Amino acid sequence: MEKPVRIALDAMGGDFGPEVVVPGAARALQQRPNLKFVFFGDRKRIKPLLDADAPLSAASTLHHTDVSVRMDAKPSQALRAGRRTSSMWLAIEAVKKNDADVAVSAGNTGALMAMAKICLQTMPGVDRPAIAAIWPTIRGSSIVLDLGASIGADAQHLIDLAIMGSAMARIIFSIEKPTVGLLNVGVEEIKGLDEVKHASRILREMELPTLCYSGFVEGDDIGKGTVDVVVTEGFTGNIALKTAEGTAKQMAQYLRESFKRDVFARIGYFLARRAFAALKAKMDPRNVNGGVFLGLNGIVIKSHGGSDVIGTARAIEIAYAMARNQLLSKIRDAIPCVSDQFATEPAFEAARASVAARSGS
Amino acid sequence: MEKPVRIALDAMGGDFGPEVVVPGAARALQQRPNLKFVFFGDRKRIKPLLDADAPLSAASTLHHTDVSVRMDAKPSQALRAGRRTSSMWLAIEAVKKNDADVAVSAGNTGALMAMAKICLQTMPGVDRPAIAAIWPTIRGSSIVLDLGASIGADAQHLIDLAIMGSAMARIIFSIEKPTVGLLNVGVEEIKGLDEVKHASRILREMELPTLCYSGFVEGDDIGKGTVDVVVTEGFTGNIALKTAEGTAKQMAQYLRESFKRDVFARIGYFLARRAFAALKAKMDPRNVNGGVFLGLNGIVIKSHGGSDVIGTARAIEIAYAMARNQLLSKIRDAIPCVSDQFATEPAFEAARASVAARSGS
Repeated sequence: MEKPVRIALDAMGGDFGPEVVVPGAARALQQRPNLKFVFFGDRKRIKPLLDADAPLSAASTLHHTDVSVRMDAKPSQALRAGRRTSSMWLAIEAVKKNDADVAVSAGNTGALMAMAKICLQTMPGVDRPAIAAIWPTIRGSSIVLDLGASIGADAQHLIDLAIMGSAMARIIFSIEKPTVGLLNVGVEEIKGLDEVKHASRILREMELPTLCYSGFVEGDDIGKGTVDVVVTEGFTGNIALKTAEGTAKQMAQYLRESFKRDVFARIGYFLARRAFAALKAKMDPRNVNGGVFLGLNGIVIKSHGGSDVIGTARAIEIAYAMARNQLLSKIRDAIPCVSDQFATEPAFEAARASVAARSGS
Repeated sequence: MEKPVRIALDAMGGDFGPEVVVPGAARALQQRPNLKFVFFGDRKRIKPLLDADAPLSAASTLHHTDVSVRMDAKPSQALRAGRRTSSMWLAIEAVKKNDADVAVSAGNTGALMAMAKICLQTMPGVDRPAIAAIWPTIRGSSIVLDLGASIGADAQHLIDLAIMGSAMARIIFSIEKPTVGLLNVGVEEIKGLDEVKHASRILREMELPTLCYSGFVEGDDIGKGTVDVVVTEGFTGNIALKTAEGTAKQMAQYLRESFKRDVFARIGYFLARRAFAALKAKMDPRNVNGGVFLGLNGIVIKSHGGSDVIGTARAIEIAYAMARNQLLSKIRDAIPCVSDQFATEPAFEAARASVAARSGS
């Protein structure tokens, strides 16, 4: 049998806690029998759920803690109340201690990122972590990052994002050299942020072995699936993600309204209901559940707070893929290659100088 | 009869030129009989189209020019080739000379903005112009700005955007005090850009008479229609707009595919086809055609390059509403009120100092 992949689960995270996390793990186990789970949280709530499922119970260990991070806690509050003691912290720490290969939590993003940063620290050569997600497109799906781990990015950080995103894309899409685009505006007059232009120049000159740089892409290229990896800084990325979610809901609402229009529309809906079920499944956010924290000394997967059993299983699936395909070492291999090979490049030097100037100001 | 509203038209702008612009004007005239048009462009192509439509011909004058701005010209190229001579420039200049109340062009955005800035100059008290558009939402529609006129914004510019956007919203939505939100990210840990937080504090303290400040909104609030006016800087705004367009296209594509699924779906589609026509109309980008350039000493409307007759008429409708309801003087009244009343406010002083420091760096 294959080497097991060990998942640390924050059983108390998300809107529903163990009642969703435990069955979610059970569902994932059916797909991937070589999964092992370490649950952290309230034994009283978790134990009965585990006991009811023999295969899951056999694949799991349980660590009790009374402390859990509230969904609305600010990162500072969460750290004060839950550092070293909460189910969220302990799940992350299990990765640090090598008791698990990856941690999954549906707890609040800010707290999870703050704890992950403190507990796992950023990788050598990477300044700041990032959140990446799999974005459904017309052609299939793409990786988009950063979705809000940090705000603003210099050229160096954008290149780090390109490298980390393409490492993830190689695993998810099983391709040698994913195509990477930098998100930019198309209005000719302004041609985008200096940092973005700068990063573009460097990425073109570098010709990195692990990715194929495709140049600038615009907002509508995300949904088109023009590239495998879309790179942007966290503020814009977060707003793009939420705007797309809002637009998808808006379209779904228009669709529902249009079917209430008259009796023919109602009958039409009835006949086409299977097609609609398929459409709904395609638009289902649970299928893309699982934001991946990149750039840390360990992998942490953020499951959506409102995830149900299917969404949780999907996040665990992503965690499994990332751990099994050694996301971390893929990134670790690629990052120094950049700094070593190009430390003397004038463009890269300029980028470093610009980073230094910025962090000094 | 009401005082006519005079529209200067760049007849050569857009992918189709006079063959779309002239019939577009004719269509708008049917709705608004007190429109007058001044066409700029190639007489050989425009004259026959005008001659074929007696009412339009009676409401129009025509100024010949051989020069037109290419759709793919960079702003610098457009200025070199078309300053003072192109149909685009002449349409803008007609507003400056008070030969027209507003200019409409489907030419390229970068060139149009560059020419408008040079010809009309920014309003006293406004540093940089902005592009605003009417964004369809679940509740109706909202104004979103800036969609790419400039990149990055300090607190002062964000407040200018709030004032200009709410002036436009008062006209479009006929409401006294439109609600205004600042676009921000929801991730608690980082809580958004300093400029955005700063602008938020000032807007709250100011209690401007012409708008109701509602605080931060996130990307998905745009489609929900949470506020009447969504304010953000041009890079993020442009990417949000394009991402929403991309997502809408993606959903439409999913929908088309789902109806090809089986024979029931096909019959269902046939029965519900009227509902779909209504849905299509609702999703039709032509209905929201018309980006409004704000902050200049004159109103310029950017019609989409690919607009057809309906889209062009819609852009002219917006131009009509803006001119008729004195958008410019509404903005002119509101801007000094801010600087006069709050020049001594510590928060505002800090904002000014921050602006000065930034422009000096």
